[in-house]
Amino acid sequence: MLNVIAREDAVKIVRRSAALQAPEVQRLPLQKAVGRVLAQDIVSECAVPPFDRSTMDGFAVRAADTFGAGASIPAELTVAGEIKMGEPAAVALSGGQCARISTGGMLPAGADAVVMAEHTEDLGDLCLCYGAVAPGENVTKKGDDIAPGSVVLRRGSVLCAGQIGALASLGIRSVPVFQKPRVAVISTGDELVQSDPTGGQICDSNSDLLFAAATNDGCDVFCFGAVKDERSAIQAAVEACLARADIVLISGGSSAGAKDMTVGILSSLGEVQFHGIAMKPGKPTIFGTVGKKLVFGLPGHPLAAYFVYRTVVSEALRTLLCLPQETPLLRGTLLENIPSNHGREELLCVQLHENGGVLPLHTKSGVLSVLTRAQGYLCIDRNTEGLPKGAEIDIYRL
Amino acid sequence: MLNVIAREDAVKIVRRSAALQAPEVQRLPLQKAVGRVLAQDIVSECAVPPFDRSTMDGFAVRAADTFGAGASIPAELTVAGEIKMGEPAAVALSGGQCARISTGGMLPAGADAVVMAEHTEDLGDLCLCYGAVAPGENVTKKGDDIAPGSVVLRRGSVLCAGQIGALASLGIRSVPVFQKPRVAVISTGDELVQSDPTGGQICDSNSDLLFAAATNDGCDVFCFGAVKDERSAIQAAVEACLARADIVLISGGSSAGAKDMTVGILSSLGEVQFHGIAMKPGKPTIFGTVGKKLVFGLPGHPLAAYFVYRTVVSEALRTLLCLPQETPLLRGTLLENIPSNHGREELLCVQLHENGGVLPLHTKSGVLSVLTRAQGYLCIDRNTEGLPKGAEIDIYRL
Repeated sequence: MLNVIAREDAVKIVRRSAALQAPEVQRLPLQKAVGRVLAQDIVSECAVPPFDRSTMDGFAVRAADTFGAGASIPAELTVAGEIKMGEPAAVALSGGQCARISTGGMLPAGADAVVMAEHTEDLGDLCLCYGAVAPGENVTKKGDDIAPGSVVLRRGSVLCAGQIGALASLGIRSVPVFQKPRVAVISTGDELVQSDPTGGQICDSNSDLLFAAATNDGCDVFCFGAVKDERSAIQAAVEACLARADIVLISGGSSAGAKDMTVGILSSLGEVQFHGIAMKPGKPTIFGTVGKKLVFGLPGHPLAAYFVYRTVVSEALRTLLCLPQETPLLRGTLLENIPSNHGREELLCVQLHENGGVLPLHTKSGVLSVLTRAQGYLCIDRNTEGLPKGAEIDIYRL
Repeated sequence: MLNVIAREDAVKIVRRSAALQAPEVQRLPLQKAVGRVLAQDIVSECAVPPFDRSTMDGFAVRAADTFGAGASIPAELTVAGEIKMGEPAAVALSGGQCARISTGGMLPAGADAVVMAEHTEDLGDLCLCYGAVAPGENVTKKGDDIAPGSVVLRRGSVLCAGQIGALASLGIRSVPVFQKPRVAVISTGDELVQSDPTGGQICDSNSDLLFAAATNDGCDVFCFGAVKDERSAIQAAVEACLARADIVLISGGSSAGAKDMTVGILSSLGEVQFHGIAMKPGKPTIFGTVGKKLVFGLPGHPLAAYFVYRTVVSEALRTLLCLPQETPLLRGTLLENIPSNHGREELLCVQLHENGGVLPLHTKSGVLSVLTRAQGYLCIDRNTEGLPKGAEIDIYRL
């Protein structure tokens, strides 16, 4: 018999154990760091932009010189020079003067605004401005984007396009990121083959399923392959995986029957932290630690293994990467009733329809292909007797 | 002056042009195909599971033999043998017989259900069943997961964990996927440097921003780097990029001023399809074709370049990968009024709050770092004068 605990308690235990692993850090060139997780706060040492900058082609002016100008009464300004791109502004404006400037050009001393070329008439030495501008108009001020000394990105930020662009704008060409968590995957079962099953055999899908899931989550994954249901073979596989990974996932043999060997192996190698989660699917789940390394015994049923990965194992990975606990992707409206009276939490694949409609995908146990039709999943609390059509519910990403 | 068109028309033109490129296909081992896009339908040649399979440890039975059994009146069955995992069932059941079976074992001929071990008493030659089972109970029938001849995955499916697992369950060890679109990125501007800007210079952020965005979208990206605002230098860069990429992105110089050279270069090399999109930011956008290759002139302002990438360029990439047009991520409720009267569509970064609340992030033009604080963006239609607090709106992913 399993001694089941609630999923939220399982996640707490897993997160606490994962937090004992000191996350390793590596420095990567910016472009190699796309999608990785930042390992320390980035504080800007300079201002972006580093000077007051025109956002338009036109004339840099003292805004006050344009006040009162309009379509019929232009302001008449003397052209004091032209701002060269990529060079310090070589002119300084005094009253009644302006300077030709391009988008991105550095405002000369004395200027505080830019008049768009479309609102001017360029007479060579003179410029007629057919409109007034306010101070700061058509200008990005020094530090408007990033002020010096500000925290640009926090440790634990995922480096997507915007983050990478912001780092580049500071001239930062390499960043410290967390090492990819090293995950090893083992499948167990006398019936498992990679392909061409004969009578009584099936193809191992858990190895590749878990490989893909952990790869997508930013891990470095090693597949040991399928191992026969022999204690010595499984133990040797676990030891080999512990030698090269921080987290080991063993699917199959995670229950408490005579043929379920994972829990015994884990007890002999380290410490079993819990055995059994009050969720469906996913009840026969084991979590243990060997030193600071984490070992999960996952159900053999692929959908159950995947749900335990998604909701429990992934929280260990998120801890290692200093990411917060997963939050729902969105809220949706149930399109049909869902019965449930299990006394344990139930997880269900769903399809997302227009206007936030959510359709549950009911399946028999052991059916994996439902994942190919699902866009998310929902959780029915263990104290809830099903959910009525029309209920507003949280949807999590798959 | 630009001759602006609506964004939906721009996307149509871009998708039509991209569809002329014949997508290239490569075959990859399953684990190398994670995250890639399937290039042809996968039809199953076999059933998954390939035989009727027990989902429990217990006894395979003829369900009818258990009818009427209960906690006080067990059904008494003769144990005809044991099902070995991974082997064809060596026994066949006749009336009143049962066979020991483990989770995943092959049901013997004659059996149509499984009684859980917990509901039985195993007396060696005899088994007492303290409960009735219905035909099919605790059994996954042959083909329940995947029926032979069914379309398991469609061309254009992204190979996430569930898809990879389903392919593995069929014994499929390699799949045809679309080649990664080859994208080249050029930044233009006399003021651009990679780091340590001096007076009038700024760090090029568009190269890395676009590199990261296209890498995240599954492309093979080549950064040419920053090029001076000289027609010959830009043209040489474009030609070099056209030689090694299917899509070229040139940021900066995309408007219609004297220093904007992209449109002239594109006219001489190929055909300009449009110049100007009625959106803010992003108006000065050019799209042209050189043979079947696609060239985009993007605004120099990083946020504008990114929004054009996200809403227009990415649709070209999606076309090359046979993916449908991007749909909103979710619907949310505006937490404040947004004024807008531009006569052109407006795109705005947003933060997502609890219970579907959406907070717009207003910024000055040319400010990129807002992307590091945003979780999505919204679009205000060009015919709409702003949006009121409380409005239900579509949110797109960043």
